[in-house]
Amino acid sequence: MLRIAVAGCTGYAGGELLRLLLEHPGVVIGNLTAGSSAGTLLGEHQPHLTPLMDREVLPTTTENLAGHDVVFLALPHGTSGPIAADLPDETVVIDCGADFRLEDPQEWREFYGSEHAGTWTYGLPEFGDQRHKIGRSTRIAVPGCYPTSVTLALMPAMAAGLISGDDVVVVAASGPSGAGRALKPHLLGAELMQSASAYGVGGVHRHNPEIRQNLRRLGAENPTVSFTPVLVPMSRGILATCSAPLVDRSTTTESARAVYEEAFEAEAYATLLPSGRWPQTQAVVGSNSCHLQVTVDEAAGRLVVVAAIDNLTKGTAGGAIQSMNLACGLAEHTGLSTIGVAP
Amino acid sequence: MLRIAVAGCTGYAGGELLRLLLEHPGVVIGNLTAGSSAGTLLGEHQPHLTPLMDREVLPTTTENLAGHDVVFLALPHGTSGPIAADLPDETVVIDCGADFRLEDPQEWREFYGSEHAGTWTYGLPEFGDQRHKIGRSTRIAVPGCYPTSVTLALMPAMAAGLISGDDVVVVAASGPSGAGRALKPHLLGAELMQSASAYGVGGVHRHNPEIRQNLRRLGAENPTVSFTPVLVPMSRGILATCSAPLVDRSTTTESARAVYEEAFEAEAYATLLPSGRWPQTQAVVGSNSCHLQVTVDEAAGRLVVVAAIDNLTKGTAGGAIQSMNLACGLAEHTGLSTIGVAP
Amino acid sequence: MLRIAVAGCTGYAGGELLRLLLEHPGVVIGNLTAGSSAGTLLGEHQPHLTPLMDREVLPTTTENLAGHDVVFLALPHGTSGPIAADLPDETVVIDCGADFRLEDPQEWREFYGSEHAGTWTYGLPEFGDQRHKIGRSTRIAVPGCYPTSVTLALMPAMAAGLISGDDVVVVAASGPSGAGRALKPHLLGAELMQSASAYGVGGVHRHNPEIRQNLRRLGAENPTVSFTPVLVPMSRGILATCSAPLVDRSTTTESARAVYEEAFEAEAYATLLPSGRWPQTQAVVGSNSCHLQVTVDEAAGRLVVVAAIDNLTKGTAGGAIQSMNLACGLAEHTGLSTIGVAP
Amino acid sequence: MLRIAVAGCTGYAGGELLRLLLEHPGVVIGNLTAGSSAGTLLGEHQPHLTPLMDREVLPTTTENLAGHDVVFLALPHGTSGPIAADLPDETVVIDCGADFRLEDPQEWREFYGSEHAGTWTYGLPEFGDQRHKIGRSTRIAVPGCYPTSVTLALMPAMAAGLISGDDVVVVAASGPSGAGRALKPHLLGAELMQSASAYGVGGVHRHNPEIRQNLRRLGAENPTVSFTPVLVPMSRGILATCSAPLVDRSTTTESARAVYEEAFEAEAYATLLPSGRWPQTQAVVGSNSCHLQVTVDEAAGRLVVVAAIDNLTKGTAGGAIQSMNLACGLAEHTGLSTIGVAP
Repeated sequence: MLRIAVAGCTGYAGGELLRLLLEHPGVVIGNLTAGSSAGTLLGEHQPHLTPLMDREVLPTTTENLAGHDVVFLALPHGTSGPIAADLPDETVVIDCGADFRLEDPQEWREFYGSEHAGTWTYGLPEFGDQRHKIGRSTRIAVPGCYPTSVTLALMPAMAAGLISGDDVVVVAASGPSGAGRALKPHLLGAELMQSASAYGVGGVHRHNPEIRQNLRRLGAENPTVSFTPVLVPMSRGILATCSAPLVDRSTTTESARAVYEEAFEAEAYATLLPSGRWPQTQAVVGSNSCHLQVTVDEAAGRLVVVAAIDNLTKGTAGGAIQSMNLACGLAEHTGLSTIGVAP
Repeated sequence: MLRIAVAGCTGYAGGELLRLLLEHPGVVIGNLTAGSSAGTLLGEHQPHLTPLMDREVLPTTTENLAGHDVVFLALPHGTSGPIAADLPDETVVIDCGADFRLEDPQEWREFYGSEHAGTWTYGLPEFGDQRHKIGRSTRIAVPGCYPTSVTLALMPAMAAGLISGDDVVVVAASGPSGAGRALKPHLLGAELMQSASAYGVGGVHRHNPEIRQNLRRLGAENPTVSFTPVLVPMSRGILATCSAPLVDRSTTTESARAVYEEAFEAEAYATLLPSGRWPQTQAVVGSNSCHLQVTVDEAAGRLVVVAAIDNLTKGTAGGAIQSMNLACGLAEHTGLSTIGVAP
Repeated sequence: MLRIAVAGCTGYAGGELLRLLLEHPGVVIGNLTAGSSAGTLLGEHQPHLTPLMDREVLPTTTENLAGHDVVFLALPHGTSGPIAADLPDETVVIDCGADFRLEDPQEWREFYGSEHAGTWTYGLPEFGDQRHKIGRSTRIAVPGCYPTSVTLALMPAMAAGLISGDDVVVVAASGPSGAGRALKPHLLGAELMQSASAYGVGGVHRHNPEIRQNLRRLGAENPTVSFTPVLVPMSRGILATCSAPLVDRSTTTESARAVYEEAFEAEAYATLLPSGRWPQTQAVVGSNSCHLQVTVDEAAGRLVVVAAIDNLTKGTAGGAIQSMNLACGLAEHTGLSTIGVAP
Repeated sequence: MLRIAVAGCTGYAGGELLRLLLEHPGVVIGNLTAGSSAGTLLGEHQPHLTPLMDREVLPTTTENLAGHDVVFLALPHGTSGPIAADLPDETVVIDCGADFRLEDPQEWREFYGSEHAGTWTYGLPEFGDQRHKIGRSTRIAVPGCYPTSVTLALMPAMAAGLISGDDVVVVAASGPSGAGRALKPHLLGAELMQSASAYGVGGVHRHNPEIRQNLRRLGAENPTVSFTPVLVPMSRGILATCSAPLVDRSTTTESARAVYEEAFEAEAYATLLPSGRWPQTQAVVGSNSCHLQVTVDEAAGRLVVVAAIDNLTKGTAGGAIQSMNLACGLAEHTGLSTIGVAP
């Protein structure tokens, strides 16, 4: 049994990690730490984790995180670096934050405004040869929730040359849990219910460079992505509508579907829906699945792919545990479900 | 005082027409008609219209619609034609359905699968010289809710030549009231809450040809539009995220904003928000306003415009009454508010 | 035209006051003030109030509130007293907070933990002879949102002796806008969506003594009320389910309905629904109406009354303006609608 | 491994049964049947059940249900009887409908308007000696969702004599999934969002006699219950606020808590929350837990208990599987979680 610590256990990502770890057959939950909530009981923050109701939240210190096989970091951006540096190399450290996702220090500075901490193994097993790399790594950066959905949506088309990475347009609807438990007026329930709103419009959202980085890894020399996140009234879920010009206008929906079917045939957590059915976020709530559908808009000359994930599961904590399984030699799907909680 | 009839008074569009007409100082509400609900009381269908609670719903017949100055048709697609044909030419007939929106019979047949009923004056006063035309017309077709938001969003950029109508991409989040009171499983509350889903993907949604028609009127020879509607958990509202390649890559956000400011300066119901603030549907619930913001994504080379409307108000019933005001010689803004019901 | 100031213009109650005042034909909106938001533009806080988008928010000081005919106070509890004291007696001051609602200083201290500021005219025109008293008053305390719904629900039955004020049980579902724009974790959208939760259970909610006070005024010597508020995922609205033992077990639903019909016959903002139809909050969103229905549970020996209001309109700002109309000699219904925004 | 059939697999209860059975280590999912949907694929109705996407839905016939160890019936009320009669006695048949819940044929006729089909073992293991009885039974009636929450809420207080079963008042907020996938206008998303509404008020809801029956089994001679269900905008969940007069006015919150702590100490699925924390439905979404809190309202002389369950899990399918485990000799908690999916 792996002994696990979770730093940042009182936030939404930390809560989702613990929800999944509690059902995971190969782990023992060790220390749970947080910043300002240290000294309280976990049940005050995560009332849905009935079995951990009386667990004390410890301060996030290297001491409290030491002595575990795996340490999950679910901390504010910019704070994972120093903590990870103090942990032994053989400890598997999995960062749910952004600190180690980007390769290019300049892009990091431009979008995050601080010094680049470094680059860890990118924790998206379905992507290129990442499954293999994750299996040999002890420092893993979990992808952002939007990049997870967009990369899975575009990956097969890029690999097959259906699209080139030019003029990609993504509009992704998301629930507020992706923003974390931050006390900001626009995240209040009364403001969010009955409302849809765009934010980070025009290329300024921090997940932009990560999406472009993934397209570059898929062969695009100078990918262009117009990315607009839209906040909608559901607590969880991302629905990413992605499109790009067809390289060859004779591509049909059928041939595109064939490409996606083959690409995801062996993947447990990326499922192309039967023809005619479109993804809905409700169907993946709490599951590690990404549901996808693809079509060709002949008149517009674009490939359109829609992907649905749970931003907290496949988009954060589920993806993190999938990487943990690989890094620790467990079956990749251990403790991860493809079944959503619906309706 | 204008005497008004509403055909289709038990649906969502009919209910919104009555909500606005009840507060309109220049009208008297005459006959209210419906199909299968004839003989019931309006209060059973529209409990929010307290003053009309005890009104009897009459059958939708020419007799019941005759003798009114204005007749609003809020009927299923394909049923407005015969009714309108029997009403006198001098009666102002305003159709909230799709029947008379499209000019091209072939496009009509392709998307609606029936014979084309004709083309009426397009009831979008902000669009080209429509304000003038509506003022001299007695047969008016209210635009679709999505085309209203998308046309307002792209109109100034098209007119100023910032974009060409090529490679337009629109993803629009909408609430289920736009689908009407239809008893379909996917419109049940339990399915919609906590879920976002795309539908009509890949160029097949019926509002597609209407959006292209408007772009052609704005000068595009052969516009291409990738349009994806997304159903999200709010009862009302559309948030349309629209983008298109810049004709001139040196266009800046500032110059684009200047174009929009000038275009909408004299418009009561299209409001460019101050720089840095993005539209949210909650802010326009129940109002006839379209809130807009525009930016340039330099890296992607695209102009991005986000527009928020209430699909039932500016998107249907409010737009219809705005046209009625013009057609009947009233001040355009009579009985129409720019104030939303929020939070 | 009355010149109006609003203190606390950036909160939900302040926003709703301004939404209604903007449509009110007898007022001019004067100074808008707030605490920490002074110096900002109103549009940053109230994006739905399109016409006031560029209004500057002034600091809440006596100087900024002086020189108006009516001053609305929408401030945190405990802060209205000193401000009101500095305003001239002839200025109509209407407090949307709790400070001046209770008569009994001891009850005030017990539930609010501070010194009692005094008692102003209770701004519920439908209640006893309050309509008359409000008309002669310049200091008016707007009732709490829950007490408004519960008092309207129980008033006719108390007056007719159907119930005695003993063993009243109220469970009231409410949206989070009633809690104001407070930055508290349990008010975040991600926590509230998909969740119902009780709070202030067991007699400790601050609206408890106000409900009892109203029952005493209606003749109960020592009323007992079990009151449980329940937070549910809608931004606005209260649905109060109220019951009490029948004094006379032979009371029938018909006779109870007759009592309510007579009691509310002349009331514009309390509407008994037709037999068989039950109130729903959506039907009163944005309206000043209270929708009610009453029945007798013969087996349980209880009268059950359900009342729906919009907590921000009839429950706060609408009620406040109704009182302003009376205090200023305007027709009571000026600027107040009975029409909800639905669906 | 137990071989399981589910009749009514396309509804919400059937979907939840399958969601749980898919994660259950002791079962194999056999035939899935339905009425009008026979011949379709399960994925069209239950898109969240990714592993069963391609399963064909068979007609609900005795042949299709024969040859299984356990048959779950998730059918409309009144249809389970004939099907069960044709199944062998040794097959464990678990009915999620109402047909076999009530003992009194007269009460059945009064509330359901048809002939009484009989009475099966009541599938609420926490209740009296039901755990033992379920373990020896092959015909089990799953309790209604409201009665599950109310019975768990009141059971310890009844058993300890804190309350008598007189003058019980219950108001329970529930999401629309409890009403099933019925195509009724009031269950449409546009009507439900932003709305709370009461229904079945005044003692007429069908769960009324079941609640009273349980109180009688707990010793009340002639229990009286005022029960009001309230529909609120969340897809799942029940929050039941229950109160009753204290038999002894000197009962304190502390002594009441002690009674509940002892009563639920050994129960896996009924959890008294720590003092000061109140149940919220979000915390039990997808889990089989009932979260409870109890307090004494001294002024009102009432015990107040609030219980939260997921109506589809503990309230239907989870409870059904808990009974299946007992009836089949498995550990009671097999395949059932106490962990909710939140936020």
